[in-house]
Amino acid sequence: MARNVLFIMCDQLRFDYLGCAGHPTLRTPNIDALARRGVRFTNCYVQSPICGPSRMSTYTGRYVKSHGARFNQCPLRVGEWTLGDHLNQIGARAVLCGKTHMRADIAGMERLGIDPDSPKGRHIAEGGFEVWDRLDGLHPDGGKAPSHYNDYLRAQGFTAENPWQAFAASAETQDGMRLSGWLNENAHRPARIPEAHSETAYSTNRAMEFIAQAGETPWCLHLSYIKPHWPLLAPAPYHAMYGPEDVIPVVRSEAERQDAHPFHAAHRANHYSRIYSRPGARERMIATYMGLITQIDDHIGRLMAFLEASGQLQDTLIIFTSDHGDYLGDHWMGEKSFFHDVSAKVPLIVVDPSPEADGTRGTEDARLTEAIDLAPTIVEAMGGVPAAHILEGRSLLPLLRGEDPPWRGHVISEIDFSVEPTRRHAGRDVDHCTMTMIFDGRFKYCYAEGVRPILFDLVEDPFELRDLGADPSHAETRARLHGALAEWALARHPRTTMSRAEVEADPDATESGILIGFWDESEVQAELEALARHRAQAGQTTRKP
Amino acid sequence: MARNVLFIMCDQLRFDYLGCAGHPTLRTPNIDALARRGVRFTNCYVQSPICGPSRMSTYTGRYVKSHGARFNQCPLRVGEWTLGDHLNQIGARAVLCGKTHMRADIAGMERLGIDPDSPKGRHIAEGGFEVWDRLDGLHPDGGKAPSHYNDYLRAQGFTAENPWQAFAASAETQDGMRLSGWLNENAHRPARIPEAHSETAYSTNRAMEFIAQAGETPWCLHLSYIKPHWPLLAPAPYHAMYGPEDVIPVVRSEAERQDAHPFHAAHRANHYSRIYSRPGARERMIATYMGLITQIDDHIGRLMAFLEASGQLQDTLIIFTSDHGDYLGDHWMGEKSFFHDVSAKVPLIVVDPSPEADGTRGTEDARLTEAIDLAPTIVEAMGGVPAAHILEGRSLLPLLRGEDPPWRGHVISEIDFSVEPTRRHAGRDVDHCTMTMIFDGRFKYCYAEGVRPILFDLVEDPFELRDLGADPSHAETRARLHGALAEWALARHPRTTMSRAEVEADPDATESGILIGFWDESEVQAELEALARHRAQAGQTTRKP
Repeated sequence: MARNVLFIMCDQLRFDYLGCAGHPTLRTPNIDALARRGVRFTNCYVQSPICGPSRMSTYTGRYVKSHGARFNQCPLRVGEWTLGDHLNQIGARAVLCGKTHMRADIAGMERLGIDPDSPKGRHIAEGGFEVWDRLDGLHPDGGKAPSHYNDYLRAQGFTAENPWQAFAASAETQDGMRLSGWLNENAHRPARIPEAHSETAYSTNRAMEFIAQAGETPWCLHLSYIKPHWPLLAPAPYHAMYGPEDVIPVVRSEAERQDAHPFHAAHRANHYSRIYSRPGARERMIATYMGLITQIDDHIGRLMAFLEASGQLQDTLIIFTSDHGDYLGDHWMGEKSFFHDVSAKVPLIVVDPSPEADGTRGTEDARLTEAIDLAPTIVEAMGGVPAAHILEGRSLLPLLRGEDPPWRGHVISEIDFSVEPTRRHAGRDVDHCTMTMIFDGRFKYCYAEGVRPILFDLVEDPFELRDLGADPSHAETRARLHGALAEWALARHPRTTMSRAEVEADPDATESGILIGFWDESEVQAELEALARHRAQAGQTTRKP
Repeated sequence: MARNVLFIMCDQLRFDYLGCAGHPTLRTPNIDALARRGVRFTNCYVQSPICGPSRMSTYTGRYVKSHGARFNQCPLRVGEWTLGDHLNQIGARAVLCGKTHMRADIAGMERLGIDPDSPKGRHIAEGGFEVWDRLDGLHPDGGKAPSHYNDYLRAQGFTAENPWQAFAASAETQDGMRLSGWLNENAHRPARIPEAHSETAYSTNRAMEFIAQAGETPWCLHLSYIKPHWPLLAPAPYHAMYGPEDVIPVVRSEAERQDAHPFHAAHRANHYSRIYSRPGARERMIATYMGLITQIDDHIGRLMAFLEASGQLQDTLIIFTSDHGDYLGDHWMGEKSFFHDVSAKVPLIVVDPSPEADGTRGTEDARLTEAIDLAPTIVEAMGGVPAAHILEGRSLLPLLRGEDPPWRGHVISEIDFSVEPTRRHAGRDVDHCTMTMIFDGRFKYCYAEGVRPILFDLVEDPFELRDLGADPSHAETRARLHGALAEWALARHPRTTMSRAEVEADPDATESGILIGFWDESEVQAELEALARHRAQAGQTTRKP
């Protein structure tokens, strides 16, 4: 059992942009060291390749269809249990240092008479986390300020109305004229902020400050870096650490644009996809993306040294992952939001400090895992029993400990692009912007209402360049995966208010004195005896009615 | 616009046990009069043919899959909005007089710090209703007492620890020995209670008391009779009003038991199904069932006279329906819980007092309607705009007013028998007891994980005696309906925290100052202009970021 959990998440980090994942030029020695100490899961999929819904799935341990926060800015229903609720029930804390993308369900709180500014209201509004430091990474002028970073910057002498935008998210010309970090023409320039005060350094410092004063109550610290997500601006020296020669080639083909699926075509029409066709843009942007990753890696090294020096490395379970990937121009796309591996698959490394996990250290595990597995993993690692009637993922502890339990045959991921410009380009109605993906380890099938599906064969076509969604020779595969998807959607049980054990122990009507359809007393006695025999066989006891 | 709504529900009343529905011997002149004043919907299906989940769907206006209270005793999630919440938002009251079968989500309330005994806690625990009188109809010794009926009975001199059981749910021998009303051998005897103090009379009295003192705030009164649900005991003279000669023949065939679907076979093995094969049982039980219906009819007559005398008939919208039917031995089954029409289809009569509805008075409407249509109908009738991002049904007002809008092509209903003895007989695991039905007006298809489906053709086989679930010649129909069911489950949008209008008005990232994937300022300007053009075309305005 781990005493504490350090749950590190990057934002928009592709699964293949790590040294240990085979990137030929990117340097991530400290993350690679985590992989050597733990298990690297090579087939981990997020439940939505979009920040908000992906994180809400991770924090609730539930599919998007279940928690309902389908897109960025869609509030998480007030009634949804989160990792924090599950941990609080076993006397552990869930503490936030960084980004969550959580938006509170204010109408839901009003309905229940919960003041958003009360302690309970803040707990709910923050998705169940205690906020040590919230920094969502996108704080334009006029938007919501980070909880502490701007004050910190001001205290360091970075004076501005919005220091995040003025310094961390800005560059400048040689003669000191400020340049917007939002604009990628500036991506090769250093941020106006010294590295030591940049977001990644700051969040790492804040995490260490938390750990240093945390006291005796077991904690799960969610260190949630806002990088390498745009604005693509790195502080010196990371802005110049990589050059065009370090950037791996784009993965795309002319054939992809022939008979393209209308949703893919719409996504390609977005300006953030088109930018990667501008000569030189991709190289400039990705070099900075890589610099930001190596910066994170350096700070993870610093954090591990801190944990080791304070004697906490041997009883802290460490998770390293991301909320989704980034197309970076592959498939003629930018950003994320669709289901190619570069968007929907994420890095996942788990270091379990317990001796039972010694046998798997340094191994890779290719079994199909989902981001919703993390919440039950954390609950179980901290000594709890995951609430299986709420949490839809599965604890990874058995895998970390060398066991070979029956495992899932597919992963699921969902999108809803109703608030993205894709909707405009696709000409879809707000209520018809969803797509659901199922991947069985070989075939990836994506279903949407009223349009043809998408299908990739990752064995024959690992880079997902040939969409078989309309290929007659794959009709059977599509039907099979559609059936599995329907079964997932129809047979899943959102019975969140009653556990399996409670259902099994629930008194039968006859046991409660509610006698349905008996003719006389002898029939009642016969039924009560049959029930008692059945409960004895099943090892059940009844709850008092 | 109706000033008030009287929402009458019976419990376990079959769609075909009304004079106006064609029953040859049953007398329901007052309900028939309602049908003449309004519209009788002849294809109304409940979203689950089981009390609890059916009612939770009716009160939330949402499918069982959406609200999650899958079976009796499964608490309704604290975050679910109910009819009461929607009405309260437009300044109207939702008041309960009778049964709801609501069970509160205590763990969910505890998580949110809501005291179940506070006004807000009671609102949530009662499914959004103000409790004028709660009488769930099943109050065995040791169970939960009704809110007021037992006190009433005691005040009338019916002294017992549990007067409901001792008087309303008991009969007696000629020499005064008490007999249990739970046992159907006693179904032909009069209840120990005089009719004037029986449950149906009492609830009607209480409804009139409410109306008489209701004051100016618009109200929706849910008069929710607990009859003709068992215990099958009627007060005199209703216990002897019908005899075996009035009971219509059973609908069942030997062929039904050949190659029966395992779920049907399991349900038939329940004692409450087997009772109908006991000689004379069906006649004795149904005669009392019919007496209880005519008793309700008499009290509805009394209630209408009261509304007319107080001048309220012309501004009260009246709904008459049931929560599900009763097999009464048909198909070798008792009770409800499966999808034959006698179980899943309900009577529905709506009397809209507005002049716009004059053209449809006395007509029948065979369009496919669902119990979840009632909540939006009530909200709209009382002047509100149904919250379409929460309410999954559709207002029936356009149909009542002679309009012909595009209408749904199918209805959906769901069961979960994990707490019923059917699970034991079927040998199913708690997590695999669901079945989902889709009916398109002709074919009724029922899907469950891991077993063959059920299919009925109601044109060729209106009494549903031939299960075509394994018939090779109907493979195409099954595939078509399975596809529609999958689409329903996959493409539905549980986006309850954000309305359509809010999504449409949500600022695009670029409008919020979050600039994603632009190279330079000129691109930003071009995108802002494109956005403005799009919004102007769509007639949208943006919310302030």
